[in-house]
Amino acid sequence: MNKEISQAVIRRMPRYYRYLGELMDAGIERISSNDLSARMNVTASQIRQDLNNFGGFGQQGYGYNVKYLYDEIGKILGVNRKHHIIIVGAGNLGQALANYVKFEKFGFVTTALFDVDTKLKGQTVRNIKIYMLDELERFVKENTVDIAALTMPKSKAEAIANHLVELGVPAIWNFAHVDLKMENKNVVVENVHLSDSLMQLSYNIVKNRQE
Amino acid sequence: MNKEISQAVIRRMPRYYRYLGELMDAGIERISSNDLSARMNVTASQIRQDLNNFGGFGQQGYGYNVKYLYDEIGKILGVNRKHHIIIVGAGNLGQALANYVKFEKFGFVTTALFDVDTKLKGQTVRNIKIYMLDELERFVKENTVDIAALTMPKSKAEAIANHLVELGVPAIWNFAHVDLKMENKNVVVENVHLSDSLMQLSYNIVKNRQE
Repeated sequence: MNKEISQAVIRRMPRYYRYLGELMDAGIERISSNDLSARMNVTASQIRQDLNNFGGFGQQGYGYNVKYLYDEIGKILGVNRKHHIIIVGAGNLGQALANYVKFEKFGFVTTALFDVDTKLKGQTVRNIKIYMLDELERFVKENTVDIAALTMPKSKAEAIANHLVELGVPAIWNFAHVDLKMENKNVVVENVHLSDSLMQLSYNIVKNRQE
Repeated sequence: MNKEISQAVIRRMPRYYRYLGELMDAGIERISSNDLSARMNVTASQIRQDLNNFGGFGQQGYGYNVKYLYDEIGKILGVNRKHHIIIVGAGNLGQALANYVKFEKFGFVTTALFDVDTKLKGQTVRNIKIYMLDELERFVKENTVDIAALTMPKSKAEAIANHLVELGVPAIWNFAHVDLKMENKNVVVENVHLSDSLMQLSYNIVKNRQE
């Protein structure tokens, strides 16, 4: 069933998950699609449409059971299981990612960082060890690695990504300034371009000034 | 004119800009929408549709002039002018952002970092000074600040964002784990949720395994 669901819908699901998590933290057990709509600043019909992609979870007139919907969306997103992350590139960004305690709440656990800088060898970030890049292959063969975050320069990203995929890593979370296009269909890639988000912001600044 | 353009289109524009920049670097002067389409992995009709929002830039049968299109999209995105960024929160993520030399290529120049950690006082990142948070108000009053990047904990983000907006900062680039909703209409906000992108990845891992 999942196959037909557009990535645009999938992009919105983590946001539902976040908001439902906040509702749970606030002790709210049930919410109407109108109330959820007002909080999330999307239309109630959009919410119903999005959730109907997965069969819908509301009962007419009763709204949504927050905990149930949270759990179901968690299953859809695959955050009900543990994902092991390694981070290749232990500079500021790599260390920042390793420090995001929040990721663990969603089952994403960082198990190792890698770098070429020998000054970093054996150091730890939040008790996560920094290895040298030449130890990467052995580590991936001996440990479960679900996601490799690439936070090293663009020039090396493609080669390392290909190597990781050959070793069987199923997912690449790419922060290098290049859209990684992997020929291998057994890998999923998520490219994060921080400068894209900055440009969207600058577009909206200019537009806002004109209004 | 810009007012009617959807944010979905705007979200795609930085990617066009990046690809055209790469074509320029490779010395390519002209490209057909079909070739651009193949490179970017979007349909040629999508490209034409997106660009037609801004009046269209191609000549039937001649394709696009790369440099001209790059410059025009740059103007649309507002990256043809300088934007001054301050970063509030000089932890790993704040320092990682300050270290992104690439942003400067697009006119985004970081001028200061702020933190509450007195150990960081007077330190610099790539020659950008770290100030204490109590110096923020004076700095914003005395210097041009176009964008404030928030890389501090969620609990403080809302109060600092509101304060910055009162001081006249027109844009917030928010990395704190909360969707900032500003009542003030004179500010634009871009929320970056790294965990959302991680969840999208995990959805696609699960889906990929099922196929």
